[in-house]
Order: sequence, then structure tokens, then C-alpha cells
Amino acid sequence: MFKEMLRAVRERHPLVHNITNYVTANDCANILLACGAAPIMADDAEEAEQITAGCGGLHLNLGTLNSGKVCAMLAAGKKANQLGHPVVLDPVGVGASDFRARMARRLLEEVRFDVIRGNLSEIRTLAGIASTASGVDASDAVTPEHLSEAVACAKAFSRKTGAIISITGAIDIVADGQKAFCISNGHPMMRSVTGTGCQLSAMTAAYVTASPDCRLEAAAAAVCAMGICGEIAHERLSPMDGSGSYRVYLMDAVWNLDEETLERRAKFQIM
Amino acid sequence: MFKEMLRAVRERHPLVHNITNYVTANDCANILLACGAAPIMADDAEEAEQITAGCGGLHLNLGTLNSGKVCAMLAAGKKANQLGHPVVLDPVGVGASDFRARMARRLLEEVRFDVIRGNLSEIRTLAGIASTASGVDASDAVTPEHLSEAVACAKAFSRKTGAIISITGAIDIVADGQKAFCISNGHPMMRSVTGTGCQLSAMTAAYVTASPDCRLEAAAAAVCAMGICGEIAHERLSPMDGSGSYRVYLMDAVWNLDEETLERRAKFQIM
Amino acid sequence: MFKEMLRAVRERHPLVHNITNYVTANDCANILLACGAAPIMADDAEEAEQITAGCGGLHLNLGTLNSGKVCAMLAAGKKANQLGHPVVLDPVGVGASDFRARMARRLLEEVRFDVIRGNLSEIRTLAGIASTASGVDASDAVTPEHLSEAVACAKAFSRKTGAIISITGAIDIVADGQKAFCISNGHPMMRSVTGTGCQLSAMTAAYVTASPDCRLEAAAAAVCAMGICGEIAHERLSPMDGSGSYRVYLMDAVWNLDEETLERRAKFQIM
Repeated sequence: MFKEMLRAVRERHPLVHNITNYVTANDCANILLACGAAPIMADDAEEAEQITAGCGGLHLNLGTLNSGKVCAMLAAGKKANQLGHPVVLDPVGVGASDFRARMARRLLEEVRFDVIRGNLSEIRTLAGIASTASGVDASDAVTPEHLSEAVACAKAFSRKTGAIISITGAIDIVADGQKAFCISNGHPMMRSVTGTGCQLSAMTAAYVTASPDCRLEAAAAAVCAMGICGEIAHERLSPMDGSGSYRVYLMDAVWNLDEETLERRAKFQIM
Repeated sequence: MFKEMLRAVRERHPLVHNITNYVTANDCANILLACGAAPIMADDAEEAEQITAGCGGLHLNLGTLNSGKVCAMLAAGKKANQLGHPVVLDPVGVGASDFRARMARRLLEEVRFDVIRGNLSEIRTLAGIASTASGVDASDAVTPEHLSEAVACAKAFSRKTGAIISITGAIDIVADGQKAFCISNGHPMMRSVTGTGCQLSAMTAAYVTASPDCRLEAAAAAVCAMGICGEIAHERLSPMDGSGSYRVYLMDAVWNLDEETLERRAKFQIM
Repeated sequence: MFKEMLRAVRERHPLVHNITNYVTANDCANILLACGAAPIMADDAEEAEQITAGCGGLHLNLGTLNSGKVCAMLAAGKKANQLGHPVVLDPVGVGASDFRARMARRLLEEVRFDVIRGNLSEIRTLAGIASTASGVDASDAVTPEHLSEAVACAKAFSRKTGAIISITGAIDIVADGQKAFCISNGHPMMRSVTGTGCQLSAMTAAYVTASPDCRLEAAAAAVCAMGICGEIAHERLSPMDGSGSYRVYLMDAVWNLDEETLERRAKFQIM
């Protein structure tokens, strides 16, 4: 099933408008090219609407946020909604400041999102659910013990927003209101490179734009693809390699990923 | 002939001021270092003029544009003109929004450029020539069938602006009003890494700054050098490698390029 | 002695708030992850104070400066001072424009820094000492002939500001008012990659945050660690490799650096 999603990206080369942070913008652009899509970055309100109109999908990312960028996001988001273009939100660090929380709320009120992708603590903050951490990393990672709770949280937030909710961590959850993919691909070393989350959000926008009629499956395919590439990149490490080479190998793996590998290595259950 | 251009960059270490987008700024800085030049990035109007005055050349790039950056570009561009420093314009995505087109027009009116480098569609937009695409990529790439038309367009635009026009695609054209280098170096995989165009613009600024008396040859040498490095990077790819490694190998090739290789591998005709 | 500093970073995972330039922000984030720390980038005055409060240390970097960023730096710096969080200043290009010099002065007046890290010419500019270059690179690099003069300059500036002064070049000096580490690790090729200085500043913030009671030793350990990694990266280069691979290997080396290697390879004298 996921292979059709990959094929659609490679055949349709969706053009994705990214309004994103300057820390990982280069990685986002390169992963879009690597997976078969194409990027445009433009974050000024003077042109955001028109750039969005010329693209197929939109990726909004709250890293290195400022008020000017939020204006551009609102203009672009509304235009994308009007044109029926998929919109992905990555609420980077939404719990780290009141400013980001306020801006995220405003975006949720004024823009309809197709996918919201973050870690568990970001999604919880966004959903207004108090983060009641019971372990060191419990608020940041979905673990087997918290799986059913996290799935319920994702489904409820999906019903509230109409968006697919994509939560990444040790186990990834991609859910709409009824159905959740619980994905166990990926490798812990992905966290040792900045922006693998941002990259996944950009790639999710590409996948959903290429297969707009199966948003849930497309978003899940993007998560699986990224996780599998994280595994392949890790298998390739030699003793002198570290996080620098891992970052390069991850990009290589996205570039080389084929349909057969995606289907064969995908590890998920449906809940 | 091109080898003297390469040698001049390595001997004179031209310092290039870049007012550029945040997506590929790191790549631009690194390619300047790799080719033997040195970068400064500064995009605030408060210091743009003074930074330009302390450098040898200037590179203006329209990616992730905003009004503040345009002010800095105008101040820096005028100062560079006044001091006789070469100025390179990269009209990234000038056709993608009215805002960029308006800002590009203003820059063309108020700053005298030594080189304008973009793809065919960007240069056509800039030249105000309606882009009448007759094939899938006809507006974006110079192909053998459209070569003489593209050369004529480049020469005419050069006569109008006084700038060397550098159009990159399957075939690259570097032209002044009378003479055009048609260069067939390069590899399609260069398009799979974001910012290879921006990098070439930065490198062009370095080459022209190091050899200000042969602007046409210097700009052509930069295009040949980049294309040859794109070929060398591709030859080095192993089966697990993809666009991530390709990006690294491209930088390595620029670092390692020597005069003999540049002369021997350069493929061009003069029209 | 240095090994305890490395261990502290790996055990405590200090979270460092970076207000930095967009050219090397990605490298700074990745080196923090590679050395065992964690990054947050946020440069808007609306959230700077709150982000700082949630972190352990703060890194302020003057590259691609603008007035908005300075506001964020002042707010974050004062908050960090109030909370007792270590603050590191990297005065990138402070001598290149009056604007940067003016902003640097304001930061020095209103924020108390724990470490100031730059090259000799930046530190001299900051210290208001006229840069009287007696050789090609004399103002930019500490050489054996100028060592004692540079050490005296560093100690005097440390006494004036209360900050550890970290000057990097052919020989690195890390000094407080009484004692200076003169470090001869490192490799000239580090200068062929943009942002190795910014990366060192970010890593210095991580080291000092993890060992706040031995600021001098922690800052010196960071300089040694970076220099040793520059050596290891160079040893790994194969004939086709250049500055692209070197950048990747440098990150790998930081990721892989262990306590024993740091102690064994550290080359310094105390003055």
C-alpha cells in the first residue's frame, strides 16, 4: 500500500512551499528533492500567498518563529485552504514559549490543517492536554506502556481538528479520528541530527500532496519511509563515522529508497 | 584560458559579500572557501554598505527575499558600483511572485550588475520576454533546439544591461553583447541538490572579482568549473550514495579542482 | 583534567539557547548534539527571555546581525545573568562594521559574559586595542612570536570583563585574569569550512554549562576537543576528499571523541 504513495511522489514531483526555520531549511529543501518532490522557501507576507498558489502543498514550521513569519503563514495557509492544497503544521517547540503557543493557537483557529506532525509533548501541548510526565522521557516519546493512551490522544485531537495527527518517537503514531498506524521503524540516532523532524514534516507534505485522496496512508508512508531510511543509514555506519556521516547517509537513503524496500521493511500495526 | 581565472582566485583570495537567502547561505560560504575565495554574509541595511566597502565583490541573491534585505542590497549595490567592485545578481524565482519581480526591477534600475546568473526562465522573466514554453522543460533549460534563440536572448539582454548574462541548464550560456560561451559541462544530478545555482553565483562573484578585466571569461570559467565538479562528483558515487553524498563530493571537487583538469575537461563552443 | 569536562557534557546534556547567524546555525545545532548537549535556536525578542529561562546556557553570536536580534540578545542575556546561566559571546566580524562594534559594546555594557570567544583581531577590536598588524596574518592569528603579547591582552581583557577570554588561531589562548592555557591543537584546514569558530562557541557554551564551577578549564577543554577533532578529521582525508568531506569528518570526530583521546592528544602549556 505504501509503495503507491512513494510512486506518486516520484511521478508527480509535488512542489511544496515551506515557511520554516533557518536552522534546517537547507535539510528540508534537500529531503524534498531526495524523495522526488521540489521545494520553494519563501516567508515574507508580501509574497507568501502567491507562492503558495503556485505550489501543490504547504509546510508550516514554527522553528525560529517571529511575528512576520506568522503573518506569512496565515496568508499562505488560508490561500492553500481556499485552493484545496494540503497543509502540514510542525509545531516545533510549541511548549517552549508562550509566544509559540499563542501563534500556534492562532494558526489552528484560522487555518485548516491536513496533517499536524510533532513529538508527543508538542502534540499534547497543542491539544491543550496537560503533559503529565511519569518518566524521564515519557512526555517526549511514545513507549509501549503509553501507546494506547497516546493513540487515544491522537484520535481525539484528529477528530477535533480534522487533521491527520502524526506523532513521532520510539513508536510513531499516525492517526485520523478512527484509525491509527503505530509504526516501529526508525533508529535512536535520528535524534542526534538536528531537523530530522522538520525533514519528515516537509516529506509528509510531499506525500500528502501527491496522494491527496489517501491522506492517512500517505502521512503514514512518509513516517515509515523516514524511519526505514534512518535504519538503513545506521546500518551503513563504519567505526570512524558519527552524526556527520549519519546525516549524509540519511539523505542518501531517502534518495535511494525504492518501493520494494519500503513495503518489505515497513513495521506497523493498526489500532 | 580558464586556468588563469582559477589561478587568480587561488592567488588573490577575493573577499565576497553575500546578501543571500538562508536556505543555501552555508553552501555559498563553503563553496567560496573551497574555490579559494572568502565569504562574508551580512544582510542588514545598517551595515551592508560598510561591509561591501571592505570586500572585493558582491553577490545579491533573491531567495527568501524581504523588504529589509532589498534595502541592504540597494545600499550595498550602489556602494559596490561606486567603488568599482563586481556585482553578481542571482534572480532566484523571480517569476514566482510579483514581489520578487518588482524588487528585481528596482535592483536593475538602481544597481549596475557585472553578471546576472539564473536559469532560462528566470533570465527571460527578467528580460521581460514572455516565456513561451514549447515543451515540458523548455522554459527552464537550454536545449540544442533552442540554443540559438537562447544565445540571442542572452546577448540582447547583455547589451541592454551591460552585464554578462549567465544562463545555466542542460547547456549553459555565458554571453556579453557580442560573444557567447555555450558550455556543455555539468550533470543532471546537480539539480537534485538545493542551491547549486546559488553556489555558482557566489563562485562567479569570486571569479569575476579575481579577474575584473576579463569578466566574460571569468564568468564562463566559473560555470565550466562548477559543471566539471558536478561531473567529477557523479563519477565518485558508489551504489549506497545518493544526493547527500553527491552534495559533499561536489564541494570536495571544487576544493580539489586544478588548472589542468579545468582546461582539459572544459567543453564549450563560442557563438 | 579535561576528561571530566567532556564527561560532564555527556552526562548532563546541557540545553543551550543559541541566538546566532543563519549561515552556520545548522552546524551549531549539530555540533551541540554531537558533543552530547542539546540546542534550541530562537532569536525573536518575544520569546528569547522565556527560552533562555528553560535552558542551561546561552550562546550569542554576532553573525548576520540585525537590531531585532540584538533586542533578543539583550533580553536573553539579562535573564541568563539573573538565573546564573553561563553566557558565551562570539563577536563574529566585530571589526567589519561600526554597527556590529556598537551592538557588541552595548552587549558588553548590559550583559555579563562568562566566555568571549573569537580570533585575535575580533578580541582586540572588542578590547578597544588598536590592531597593529606586523605581518600578513598577525592580526588574525596568534603566532609564537606574538604569544606573550596575546596572552597579556587576553588576561587584561578578562580582568576588565570578568569573562574567560578564548582566542583561537594557530595557537589558541584561553585565559582568565591570572592563568592562560596556550593550546596548539587544531589543523589549518579548519579554516576552510565556514563556521568552525561558531561551532566552537556553541560547544564552549555546552562545556561551561556542564561544569560551571571550572569555567576556565571547561572553556579550554572545548578548545582542545575541537582542535583534536580537527586533527582527526584531517588524518581521515583520502585523495578525493576536500573541504566537503572534512566538514563531515569534523562532526563525526566530535561525536566519537572519548575521554582518553582528549587527555592523550591535548597539547597545551600554562602561562
